[in-house]
Amino acid sequence: MKITRIRDAVAPIPSPMRNSVISFDKMTISIVAIETDVVRDGKPVVGLGFCSNGRYAQSGIMRERLIPRVMERDAAELLDDDGGNFSPQRIWAAMMSNEKPGGHGDRAVAVGAIDMAVWDLVAKIENKPLWKVLSERFNSGAHLDEVLVYSGGGYYYPENEKTGLIGEMERTRALGYRLCKMKIGGADIDTDRQRIEWALGVVGAGQNLAVDANGRFGLDEAIAYGRMLEEYDLCWYEEPVDPLDYMAHAVLAETTSIPIATGENLFSTQDFRNLLRHGGLRADRDWIQPDPSLCYGLTECLRIIELAKTMGWERLRTVPHGGHQLGLHMAIGLGLGGTESYPGVFQPYGGFADDVEIVDGMTTPPEAPGLGIETRAKMIGDMRERLELG
Amino acid sequence: MKITRIRDAVAPIPSPMRNSVISFDKMTISIVAIETDVVRDGKPVVGLGFCSNGRYAQSGIMRERLIPRVMERDAAELLDDDGGNFSPQRIWAAMMSNEKPGGHGDRAVAVGAIDMAVWDLVAKIENKPLWKVLSERFNSGAHLDEVLVYSGGGYYYPENEKTGLIGEMERTRALGYRLCKMKIGGADIDTDRQRIEWALGVVGAGQNLAVDANGRFGLDEAIAYGRMLEEYDLCWYEEPVDPLDYMAHAVLAETTSIPIATGENLFSTQDFRNLLRHGGLRADRDWIQPDPSLCYGLTECLRIIELAKTMGWERLRTVPHGGHQLGLHMAIGLGLGGTESYPGVFQPYGGFADDVEIVDGMTTPPEAPGLGIETRAKMIGDMRERLELG
Repeated sequence: MKITRIRDAVAPIPSPMRNSVISFDKMTISIVAIETDVVRDGKPVVGLGFCSNGRYAQSGIMRERLIPRVMERDAAELLDDDGGNFSPQRIWAAMMSNEKPGGHGDRAVAVGAIDMAVWDLVAKIENKPLWKVLSERFNSGAHLDEVLVYSGGGYYYPENEKTGLIGEMERTRALGYRLCKMKIGGADIDTDRQRIEWALGVVGAGQNLAVDANGRFGLDEAIAYGRMLEEYDLCWYEEPVDPLDYMAHAVLAETTSIPIATGENLFSTQDFRNLLRHGGLRADRDWIQPDPSLCYGLTECLRIIELAKTMGWERLRTVPHGGHQLGLHMAIGLGLGGTESYPGVFQPYGGFADDVEIVDGMTTPPEAPGLGIETRAKMIGDMRERLELG
Repeated sequence: MKITRIRDAVAPIPSPMRNSVISFDKMTISIVAIETDVVRDGKPVVGLGFCSNGRYAQSGIMRERLIPRVMERDAAELLDDDGGNFSPQRIWAAMMSNEKPGGHGDRAVAVGAIDMAVWDLVAKIENKPLWKVLSERFNSGAHLDEVLVYSGGGYYYPENEKTGLIGEMERTRALGYRLCKMKIGGADIDTDRQRIEWALGVVGAGQNLAVDANGRFGLDEAIAYGRMLEEYDLCWYEEPVDPLDYMAHAVLAETTSIPIATGENLFSTQDFRNLLRHGGLRADRDWIQPDPSLCYGLTECLRIIELAKTMGWERLRTVPHGGHQLGLHMAIGLGLGGTESYPGVFQPYGGFADDVEIVDGMTTPPEAPGLGIETRAKMIGDMRERLELG
């Protein structure tokens, strides 16, 4: 049983919107295929993966460092003890050999894309959906029968803020979402308050709306927004300040009652440990949001969830960022609080199976083996073409 | 006045040694040339830069993200207010546009290599050594007339630890170095104690030896080593634990009296702020060691030094990592505590001018414009060839 080839390609996912910090008009991601000599249904099994939006493609790091390190190992070194399947942990360790500690950035994204393909591969070899593999290995066989998916969106519409935002929220609700997220911090506080009221007019009061500042605010402004947001019954206040400014998080948690959410821009167990040690977050209400495809993959994300548990955080407080199938499988198989989705943007890579049904904000476990990328016609077509898969 | 082209290339710097964490046998760096239409002595001025050892070449990030962002700006946007020279801060901001907060890793290395070339360019246009530009802009015209350079080294010699280490230390002393650094953590504590005593037999007691664990230890082992090291009068104990484990630094600073040094694997102002806020370091004895070519360049490193000042750290407590000419110019022009050097390794990129004189561990300000890479025959030859410069 061996890996015969690892391919990668760049997929552009330009999107016209911007958040309060960056524009997505030149956004790209890396896509990955791991080819093996394992045969299922007469065909070699191929693991597929990609990295989330926001951090660009990582061909250089994958081609120059990670892929050669995996391919030069003896095949047996990359398998589980009983040799029955590939070992995500051993492949991960091979990728990270001769890498120094600290500096968790683009490297984590590159590892994450390959690691996603490894887990897809492992689940396909077991002929199970990934959530079931995760449930068996890391959740004593338990899983969620339905899981929250919330919509990331609520963009700015410079030409027509009111009708643009209301229209988007109405379309999102029509797709079955209950909890919707919207951007803040790209306008002044009074404009954002007005936008929040417009959005609440569609989604309704009572934990149906979350807001996201994308790490833009200094502490003063973050506190001012926090006080404004407390007047509404919002689900959370996401990335109020720089993701690495732990002390600012702690001050904010002391001065406002609104739940805080953060984590998509922390890329390692070390960074999450610092957030939970120094960030003053409240395990009874705040949210941690790692993106498994950005933070060295599911393999590292499992360490982060385990660490959070030792520090008093139930798995239900974790809601992965990224709006991809990996987050969905993790939420179901590990029993997390839900996962993100991006209706209509970052296509064809955002979202879940083509036939996914979302009812009152919840969806049910998919049945296809692995991540189920093959159940998404446009995405699998795009991957086959760009990766030159047969 | 405009940038006409930015070239990059990969330079292999394989070295046979390993520290306690990684091997350097496949180490590479990126080298950079910024070509302009500015003419000095009848030739266009070219800025040269590179990234330090330890983090590999970064062609992908430079070519796909950073270089296009600089080249698509209007030329005037990249100049100082008076249009008389390029603005490192504006070029830096262009490189970092549409980059999200957090995730400070390989991106910081890629920015650092280009930023080094920008500062070389700016100083060449002023026809001054870089230290003089830094002195005028950031040190009220003051500079050091002589500066400490210490040797990074003290490797393991698996076949003959005693004669290997002693021989290396004798060669280093013969080159003029006074303060020498050696690796620890790659053997058991008793072996390392013996190695320290062998090294002290050459360099002599009294702040002439520093030790470097490269972030390998857990807290227990770090404390045990700290207690052992206290018995000798060492200059510092470098990277005892994971560079991002601030709490472990704080515990270590409480439990041992030996000076702690760290910073080469922190790549942003945010990370250094966390170290100084949460790491419990002692401003009267500990050392901070940013590598300007790894942490988003001199432009960001100036912010780190300024931040450290507001938190009670004198500039003399900063000793840049990396063993390159940029660290030397910074130490002289900004008045830092010294800089690192790697006699004999990472060639031709490690080290200073070919005619540098080191006497009792000190050297004097170089006179060539810019970084003075042109005063190093092998290095400039290698760069000209790999970058296909005329």
